[in-house]
Amino acid sequence: MQFNLPTSIEILDRTPLVLKTLLQNLPEDWTTPNEGPDTWSPYDVVGHLIQGEKKDWIPRAKIILTHGESVPFTPFDRFAQFEESKGKTLNQLLEEFERLRAENITALKSLNISSEDLMKTGMHPGLGQVTLENLLASWVVHDFGHINQISRVMAKQYINEVGPWTEYMGVLK
Amino acid sequence: MQFNLPTSIEILDRTPLVLKTLLQNLPEDWTTPNEGPDTWSPYDVVGHLIQGEKKDWIPRAKIILTHGESVPFTPFDRFAQFEESKGKTLNQLLEEFERLRAENITALKSLNISSEDLMKTGMHPGLGQVTLENLLASWVVHDFGHINQISRVMAKQYINEVGPWTEYMGVLK
Repeated sequence: MQFNLPTSIEILDRTPLVLKTLLQNLPEDWTTPNEGPDTWSPYDVVGHLIQGEKKDWIPRAKIILTHGESVPFTPFDRFAQFEESKGKTLNQLLEEFERLRAENITALKSLNISSEDLMKTGMHPGLGQVTLENLLASWVVHDFGHINQISRVMAKQYINEVGPWTEYMGVLK
Repeated sequence: MQFNLPTSIEILDRTPLVLKTLLQNLPEDWTTPNEGPDTWSPYDVVGHLIQGEKKDWIPRAKIILTHGESVPFTPFDRFAQFEESKGKTLNQLLEEFERLRAENITALKSLNISSEDLMKTGMHPGLGQVTLENLLASWVVHDFGHINQISRVMAKQYINEVGPWTEYMGVLK
Protein backbone atom coordinates (compact mmCIF):
# COMPACT_ATOMS: atom_id res chain seq x y z
CA MET A 1 0.00 0.00 0.00
CA GLN A 2 1.18 3.48 -0.85
CA PHE A 3 0.31 6.41 1.37
CA ASN A 4 -2.78 8.17 0.02
CA LEU A 5 -3.67 11.56 1.47
CA PRO A 6 -7.37 11.78 0.50
CA THR A 7 -8.13 8.29 1.85
CA SER A 8 -6.13 9.02 5.00
CA ILE A 9 -8.20 12.16 5.54
CA GLU A 10 -11.40 10.16 4.95
CA ILE A 11 -10.36 7.64 7.63
CA LEU A 12 -9.29 10.33 10.13
CA ASP A 13 -12.60 12.09 9.59
CA ARG A 14 -14.58 8.98 10.58
CA THR A 15 -12.87 8.16 13.88
CA PRO A 16 -15.01 10.43 16.09
CA LEU A 17 -18.19 8.71 14.91
CA VAL A 18 -16.62 5.27 15.41
CA LEU A 19 -15.80 6.21 19.02
CA LYS A 20 -19.17 7.84 19.70
CA THR A 21 -20.94 4.77 18.36
CA LEU A 22 -18.82 2.48 20.52
CA LEU A 23 -18.99 4.52 23.72
CA GLN A 24 -21.61 7.25 23.94
CA ASN A 25 -24.15 6.93 26.77
CA LEU A 26 -22.88 3.54 27.93
CA PRO A 27 -22.83 2.87 31.68
CA GLU A 28 -19.51 3.78 33.31
CA ASP A 29 -18.77 0.16 34.19
CA TRP A 30 -18.16 -0.33 30.45
CA THR A 31 -16.09 2.79 29.86
CA THR A 32 -13.92 3.41 32.93
CA PRO A 33 -12.31 0.02 33.71
CA ASN A 34 -8.83 -0.60 32.31
CA GLU A 35 -6.71 -3.75 31.86
CA GLY A 36 -4.78 -3.42 35.14
CA PRO A 37 -2.06 -1.13 36.56
CA ASP A 38 -0.61 1.36 34.06
CA THR A 39 -3.21 0.58 31.39
CA TRP A 40 -5.92 2.82 30.01
CA SER A 41 -9.68 2.73 30.06
CA PRO A 42 -11.77 3.82 27.06
CA TYR A 43 -12.30 7.09 28.98
CA ASP A 44 -8.53 7.57 29.29
CA VAL A 45 -8.01 6.80 25.59
CA VAL A 46 -10.48 9.45 24.42
CA GLY A 47 -8.71 11.99 26.64
CA HIS A 48 -5.40 10.95 25.09
CA LEU A 49 -6.80 11.36 21.57
CA ILE A 50 -7.89 14.90 22.49
CA GLN A 51 -4.34 15.72 23.56
CA GLY A 52 -3.12 14.38 20.22
CA GLU A 53 -5.43 16.76 18.39
CA LYS A 54 -4.15 19.68 20.46
CA LYS A 55 -0.45 18.97 20.71
CA ASP A 56 0.68 16.26 18.34
CA TRP A 57 -0.36 15.73 14.72
CA ILE A 58 -1.20 19.10 13.20
CA PRO A 59 1.30 21.10 15.28
CA ARG A 60 4.05 18.71 14.18
CA ALA A 61 2.95 18.80 10.53
CA LYS A 62 3.24 22.59 10.67
CA ILE A 63 6.71 22.37 12.24
CA ILE A 64 7.88 20.12 9.38
CA LEU A 65 6.44 22.42 6.70
CA THR A 66 7.72 25.63 8.33
CA HIS A 67 11.00 24.66 9.95
CA GLY A 68 12.01 21.20 8.68
CA GLU A 69 14.48 19.51 10.99
CA SER A 70 15.75 22.78 12.50
CA VAL A 71 12.99 22.85 15.14
CA PRO A 72 12.53 19.45 16.82
CA PHE A 73 8.99 18.48 17.80
CA THR A 74 7.86 19.34 21.32
CA PRO A 75 7.81 16.04 23.27
CA PHE A 76 4.25 14.72 23.60
CA ASP A 77 2.92 14.06 27.09
CA ARG A 78 1.28 10.61 26.97
CA PHE A 79 -0.23 11.13 30.42
CA ALA A 80 -1.68 14.65 30.11
CA GLN A 81 -5.22 13.29 29.88
CA PHE A 82 -5.16 12.22 33.53
CA GLU A 83 -5.17 15.92 34.48
CA GLU A 84 -6.92 17.41 31.46
CA SER A 85 -9.94 15.08 31.50
CA LYS A 86 -10.69 15.71 35.19
CA GLY A 87 -14.31 16.66 35.85
CA LYS A 88 -15.42 15.87 32.30
CA THR A 89 -17.86 13.14 31.35
CA LEU A 90 -17.00 10.70 28.59
CA ASN A 91 -19.79 12.19 26.47
CA GLN A 92 -18.17 15.62 26.84
CA LEU A 93 -14.78 14.20 25.84
CA LEU A 94 -16.33 12.51 22.78
CA GLU A 95 -17.87 15.83 21.71
CA GLU A 96 -14.60 17.65 22.30
CA PHE A 97 -12.66 15.10 20.28
CA GLU A 98 -15.18 15.33 17.44
CA ARG A 99 -14.90 19.13 17.34
CA LEU A 100 -11.09 19.18 17.51
CA ARG A 101 -10.76 16.48 14.86
CA ALA A 102 -13.06 18.36 12.50
CA GLU A 103 -10.99 21.53 13.01
CA ASN A 104 -7.80 19.57 12.35
CA ILE A 105 -9.16 17.98 9.19
CA THR A 106 -9.93 21.50 7.95
CA ALA A 107 -6.44 22.61 8.94
CA LEU A 108 -4.89 19.58 7.21
CA LYS A 109 -6.76 20.27 3.97
CA SER A 110 -5.81 23.94 4.07
CA LEU A 111 -2.11 22.99 4.14
CA ASN A 112 -2.52 21.86 0.49
CA ILE A 113 0.10 19.20 0.95
CA SER A 114 1.85 18.12 -2.28
CA SER A 115 3.68 14.85 -2.90
CA GLU A 116 6.94 16.81 -2.53
CA ASP A 117 5.75 18.09 0.85
CA LEU A 118 5.16 14.51 2.01
CA MET A 119 8.90 13.84 1.66
CA LYS A 120 9.86 16.84 3.81
CA THR A 121 11.48 15.91 7.11
CA GLY A 122 11.27 16.88 10.74
CA MET A 123 13.09 15.90 13.91
CA HIS A 124 11.25 13.68 16.41
CA PRO A 125 12.74 13.98 19.93
CA GLY A 126 12.82 10.19 20.36
CA LEU A 127 12.75 8.72 16.84
CA GLY A 128 15.02 11.13 14.93
CA GLN A 129 14.36 12.04 11.31
CA VAL A 130 10.80 11.45 10.11
CA THR A 131 8.93 12.52 6.99
CA LEU A 132 5.60 14.32 6.85
CA GLU A 133 4.27 11.14 5.21
CA ASN A 134 5.46 9.09 8.22
CA LEU A 135 3.67 11.55 10.53
CA LEU A 136 0.35 11.47 8.67
CA ALA A 137 0.41 7.67 8.23
CA SER A 138 1.11 7.39 11.97
CA TRP A 139 -1.90 9.57 12.74
CA VAL A 140 -4.09 7.06 10.87
CA VAL A 141 -2.44 4.02 12.49
CA HIS A 142 -2.69 5.69 15.91
CA ASP A 143 -6.48 5.99 15.45
CA PHE A 144 -6.77 2.31 14.51
CA GLY A 145 -4.48 1.35 17.40
CA HIS A 146 -6.75 3.03 19.91
CA ILE A 147 -9.94 1.61 18.37
CA ASN A 148 -8.17 -1.74 18.67
CA GLN A 149 -7.37 -1.04 22.33
CA ILE A 150 -10.87 0.16 23.24
CA SER A 151 -12.53 -2.89 21.64
CA ARG A 152 -10.14 -5.19 23.53
CA VAL A 153 -10.67 -3.47 26.88
CA MET A 154 -14.45 -3.61 26.42
CA ALA A 155 -14.37 -7.28 25.38
CA LYS A 156 -12.60 -8.08 28.65
CA GLN A 157 -15.52 -6.77 30.69
CA TYR A 158 -17.28 -10.06 29.92
CA ILE A 159 -14.22 -12.29 30.36
CA ASN A 160 -15.98 -14.36 33.03
CA GLU A 161 -19.49 -14.13 31.59
CA VAL A 162 -18.56 -15.94 28.36
CA GLY A 163 -17.78 -19.10 30.36
CA PRO A 164 -16.32 -21.90 28.18
CA TRP A 165 -16.30 -19.59 25.10
CA THR A 166 -13.19 -17.88 26.44
CA GLU A 167 -11.27 -20.61 24.58
CA TYR A 168 -12.48 -19.33 21.19
CA MET A 169 -12.08 -15.61 21.91
CA GLY A 170 -8.60 -14.47 20.92
CA VAL A 171 -9.37 -10.90 22.00
CA LEU A 172 -9.59 -12.06 25.65
CA LYS A 173 -6.05 -13.47 25.67
CA MET B 1 -18.92 -6.93 35.85
CA GLN B 2 -22.19 -8.81 35.89
CA PHE B 3 -23.94 -9.71 32.65
CA ASN B 4 -26.56 -7.07 31.83
CA LEU B 5 -29.06 -7.85 29.09
CA PRO B 6 -30.25 -4.31 28.23
CA THR B 7 -26.68 -2.99 27.94
CA SER B 8 -25.64 -6.05 25.93
CA ILE B 9 -28.51 -5.39 23.51
CA GLU B 10 -27.49 -1.72 23.29
CA ILE B 11 -23.92 -2.74 22.35
CA LEU B 12 -25.05 -5.38 19.84
CA ASP B 13 -27.34 -2.81 18.25
CA ARG B 14 -24.46 -0.40 17.60
CA THR B 15 -22.04 -2.76 15.87
CA PRO B 16 -23.41 -2.34 12.32
CA LEU B 17 -22.88 1.44 12.50
CA VAL B 18 -19.38 0.96 13.92
CA LEU B 19 -18.50 -1.28 10.97
CA LYS B 20 -20.16 0.96 8.37
CA THR B 21 -18.29 3.96 9.75
CA LEU B 22 -15.00 2.09 9.64
CA LEU B 23 -15.42 0.51 6.22
CA GLN B 24 -18.16 1.87 3.96
CA ASN B 25 -17.03 3.29 0.59
CA LEU B 26 -13.33 2.86 1.33
CA PRO B 27 -11.09 1.75 -1.57
CA GLU B 28 -10.68 -2.02 -1.78
CA ASP B 29 -6.97 -1.83 -0.98
CA TRP B 30 -8.07 -0.95 2.57
CA THR B 31 -10.78 -3.57 2.94
CA THR B 32 -9.66 -6.73 1.12
CA PRO B 33 -6.06 -7.35 2.31
CA ASN B 34 -5.61 -9.77 5.20
CA GLU B 35 -2.69 -10.50 7.56
CA GLY B 36 -1.25 -13.41 5.56
CA PRO B 37 -2.24 -17.04 4.81
CA ASP B 38 -5.32 -18.26 6.70
CA THR B 39 -6.18 -14.82 8.04
CA TRP B 40 -9.19 -12.66 7.24
CA SER B 41 -9.66 -9.30 5.60
CA PRO B 42 -12.26 -6.79 6.82
CA TYR B 43 -14.40 -8.00 3.87
CA ASP B 44 -14.12 -11.61 5.11
CA VAL B 45 -14.97 -10.59 8.68
CA VAL B 46 -18.21 -8.84 7.69
CA GLY B 47 -19.22 -11.97 5.75
CA HIS B 48 -18.47 -14.05 8.84
CA LEU B 49 -20.59 -11.76 11.03
CA ILE B 50 -23.49 -12.23 8.59
CA GLN B 51 -23.20 -16.00 8.98
CA GLY B 52 -23.29 -15.53 12.74
CA GLU B 53 -26.57 -13.62 12.46
CA LYS B 54 -28.04 -16.37 10.31
CA LYS B 55 -26.72 -19.52 11.97
CA ASP B 56 -25.20 -18.87 15.34
CA TRP B 57 -26.47 -16.57 18.08
CA ILE B 58 -30.25 -16.38 17.85
CA PRO B 59 -30.72 -19.94 16.54
CA ARG B 60 -28.67 -21.24 19.47
CA ALA B 61 -30.52 -19.07 22.00
CA LYS B 62 -33.76 -20.59 20.73
CA ILE B 63 -32.35 -24.12 21.01
CA ILE B 64 -31.42 -23.48 24.66
CA LEU B 65 -34.86 -22.05 25.48
CA THR B 66 -36.78 -24.74 23.61
CA HIS B 67 -34.71 -27.90 24.02
CA GLY B 68 -32.07 -27.25 26.69
CA GLU B 69 -29.17 -29.68 26.41
CA SER B 70 -31.21 -32.36 24.62
CA VAL B 71 -30.54 -30.81 21.17
CA PRO B 72 -26.86 -29.89 20.72
CA PHE B 73 -26.13 -26.76 18.68
CA THR B 74 -25.51 -27.22 14.95
CA PRO B 75 -21.75 -26.77 14.43
CA PHE B 76 -20.98 -23.30 13.04
CA ASP B 77 -19.07 -23.08 9.76
CA ARG B 78 -16.34 -20.49 10.31
CA PHE B 79 -15.50 -20.50 6.60
CA ALA B 80 -18.97 -20.24 5.04
CA GLN B 81 -18.41 -16.57 4.14
CA PHE B 82 -15.85 -17.51 1.49
CA GLU B 83 -18.71 -19.00 -0.57
CA GLU B 84 -21.62 -16.91 0.70
CA SER B 85 -20.01 -13.49 0.12
CA LYS B 86 -19.07 -14.26 -3.50
CA GLY B 87 -20.20 -11.58 -5.93
CA LYS B 88 -21.20 -9.16 -3.20
CA THR B 89 -19.57 -5.81 -2.57
CA LEU B 90 -18.49 -4.85 0.93
CA ASN B 91 -21.16 -2.14 0.97
CA GLN B 92 -23.79 -4.81 0.22
CA LEU B 93 -22.44 -7.01 3.03
CA LEU B 94 -22.54 -4.08 5.46
CA GLU B 95 -26.18 -3.41 4.56
CA GLU B 96 -27.04 -7.10 4.90
CA PHE B 97 -25.35 -7.31 8.29
CA GLU B 98 -27.19 -4.19 9.47
CA ARG B 99 -30.55 -5.63 8.40
CA LEU B 100 -29.95 -9.08 9.91
CA ARG B 101 -28.65 -7.63 13.18
CA ALA B 102 -31.72 -5.38 13.48
CA GLU B 103 -33.97 -8.40 12.92
CA ASN B 104 -32.06 -10.40 15.50
CA ILE B 105 -32.23 -7.61 18.09
CA THR B 106 -36.00 -7.63 17.61
CA ALA B 107 -36.03 -11.43 17.94
CA LEU B 108 -33.86 -11.25 21.07
CA LYS B 109 -36.16 -8.72 22.72
CA SER B 110 -39.23 -10.77 21.82
CA LEU B 111 -37.79 -13.78 23.69
CA ASN B 112 -38.45 -11.82 26.94
CA ILE B 113 -35.48 -13.45 28.60
CA SER B 114 -35.68 -13.57 32.43
CA SER B 115 -32.77 -13.96 34.84
CA GLU B 116 -33.84 -17.59 35.30
CA ASP B 117 -33.68 -18.09 31.52
CA LEU B 118 -30.09 -16.80 31.51
CA MET B 119 -29.07 -19.78 33.65
CA LYS B 120 -30.65 -22.31 31.27
CA THR B 121 -28.14 -24.55 29.55
CA GLY B 122 -27.46 -25.91 26.11
CA MET B 123 -24.91 -28.28 24.59
CA HIS B 124 -22.15 -26.77 22.44
CA PRO B 125 -20.64 -29.36 20.06
CA GLY B 126 -17.08 -28.37 21.01
CA LEU B 127 -17.34 -26.66 24.40
CA GLY B 128 -19.94 -28.79 26.17
CA GLN B 129 -22.44 -27.30 28.60
CA VAL B 130 -22.97 -23.55 28.25
CA THR B 131 -25.59 -21.19 29.67
CA LEU B 132 -27.73 -18.74 27.73
CA GLU B 133 -25.85 -16.01 29.59
CA ASN B 134 -22.54 -17.42 28.28
CA LEU B 135 -23.97 -17.40 24.75
CA LEU B 136 -25.22 -13.80 24.89
CA ALA B 137 -22.04 -12.51 26.55
CA SER B 138 -20.06 -14.30 23.82
CA TRP B 139 -22.11 -12.57 21.13
CA VAL B 140 -21.03 -9.20 22.58
CA VAL B 141 -17.39 -10.24 22.99
CA HIS B 142 -17.41 -11.70 19.46
CA ASP B 143 -18.44 -8.27 18.09
CA PHE B 144 -15.64 -6.53 19.98
CA GLY B 145 -13.19 -9.22 18.89
CA HIS B 146 -13.92 -8.59 15.24
CA ILE B 147 -13.82 -4.80 15.62
CA ASN B 148 -10.45 -5.40 17.26
CA GLN B 149 -9.35 -7.56 14.32
CA ILE B 150 -10.55 -5.14 11.63
CA SER B 151 -8.81 -2.17 13.26
CA ARG B 152 -5.57 -4.19 13.50
CA VAL B 153 -5.71 -5.39 9.88
CA MET B 154 -6.37 -1.84 8.68
CA ALA B 155 -3.57 -0.39 10.81
CA LYS B 156 -1.15 -2.81 9.14
CA GLN B 157 -1.87 -1.33 5.71
CA TYR B 158 0.45 1.53 6.71
CA ILE B 159 3.08 -0.62 8.41
CA ASN B 160 5.81 0.70 6.10
CA GLU B 161 4.44 4.22 5.69
CA VAL B 162 4.79 5.07 9.40
CA GLY B 163 8.58 4.70 9.14
CA PRO B 164 10.33 5.04 12.53
CA TRP B 165 6.94 5.32 14.34
CA THR B 166 6.48 1.56 14.01
CA GLU B 167 8.39 1.36 17.31
CA TYR B 168 5.59 3.17 19.18
CA MET B 169 2.66 1.39 17.51
CA GLY B 170 1.74 -1.73 19.47
CA VAL B 171 -1.07 -2.54 17.03
CA LEU B 172 1.52 -3.21 14.29
CA LYS B 173 3.32 -5.90 16.30
